[in-house]
Amino acid sequence: MTDKTRLDRIFDFILEIDKEKKIVRQTYLTGAARKEDDAEHAWHMAVMALLLSDEANSKVDLLKVVSMLLVHDLIEIYAGDTYCYDAEAVKSQAGRERAAADRLYALLPDDLGTKLRALWEEFEANATPEACFAKTLDNLQPCMLNAATDGKAWAEHRVKLSQILHRNANTAKGSQKLWEYQKERFIRPALEKGRIIADTELK
Amino acid sequence: MTDKTRLDRIFDFILEIDKEKKIVRQTYLTGAARKEDDAEHAWHMAVMALLLSDEANSKVDLLKVVSMLLVHDLIEIYAGDTYCYDAEAVKSQAGRERAAADRLYALLPDDLGTKLRALWEEFEANATPEACFAKTLDNLQPCMLNAATDGKAWAEHRVKLSQILHRNANTAKGSQKLWEYQKERFIRPALEKGRIIADTELK
Repeated sequence: MTDKTRLDRIFDFILEIDKEKKIVRQTYLTGAARKEDDAEHAWHMAVMALLLSDEANSKVDLLKVVSMLLVHDLIEIYAGDTYCYDAEAVKSQAGRERAAADRLYALLPDDLGTKLRALWEEFEANATPEACFAKTLDNLQPCMLNAATDGKAWAEHRVKLSQILHRNANTAKGSQKLWEYQKERFIRPALEKGRIIADTELK
Repeated sequence: MTDKTRLDRIFDFILEIDKEKKIVRQTYLTGAARKEDDAEHAWHMAVMALLLSDEANSKVDLLKVVSMLLVHDLIEIYAGDTYCYDAEAVKSQAGRERAAADRLYALLPDDLGTKLRALWEEFEANATPEACFAKTLDNLQPCMLNAATDGKAWAEHRVKLSQILHRNANTAKGSQKLWEYQKERFIRPALEKGRIIADTELK
């Protein structure tokens, strides 16, 4: 390790994160032929941020939002993807992800490791305008794809409306307008078609 | 079309670009089990930009570099991926991609379509510090993955060093330091192992 240059360490990290392309999520791509991976999900949301940042509740630093979206799932390389409606997996999620961050960010030179880890921690804390808006997109993007694939992932997992509302408890915190859009254009039609189990009311 | 809201048009575009995840490139992922797609490639380079922007020859606006990298391959949704060492396909590439841009960016509200198209055109013109640095990464990233997969894609396509040097004629324009790194760490070892055909000298 000691004879590695700064660039060597950066490139070790860059090659390691290639593995994010192999972390498969529960969401189907449009056409539903296969599920998307974490890298595709991050890319999609980063482009969405470029197009939708004016819809945030507060003015946001767009570079920070995009950076957060690009790196927020890196810890899944070691911690795995935790399906948001898998209650048992969600219980152990925070601890697994913290250990993954310790391991992953140690690959980088200290200044860069600290910078990227701080972006992830800010995202997870969901307190700044940038984190709240990034979380809005992180909730909206899979919901949009689920709706576009006739609710295939929802139906397969027998997802209930109460679960979706719980998952989206903070979506409006980043953008009230996008949450309303998501609710009316993506959730309500799938609910009316029975692709989401109607165990509560959608207001 | 006339009763579509601004958000409807933005979301039509966002759903359409999901297809970028289905555009497969010639580069293998680490492990070489499959080739990467355009969305994964764009994500990887955007993260690389966050880590490597200090290595650019000139100071760059990082948000612009990242934005360019995120959108520069969108036209391939209609124009297809053009393998850089396929001489016939390269001949028709510019025309196909311009027609694709006309079609794709018309989906968006005018202000956003103009903004994203301008990013792509700036990238293609390769004249500003941001475009030059983005091009450096666009050349470096597949070269790095080819090296990491023991030159599999190079060997399959019987790629010659002269072709690689031609493709990389402008890589140093964005970052002399990264080009030197790419040459010594990724290209030279593959050349010495015979994974790249040595039809000229690597200086």
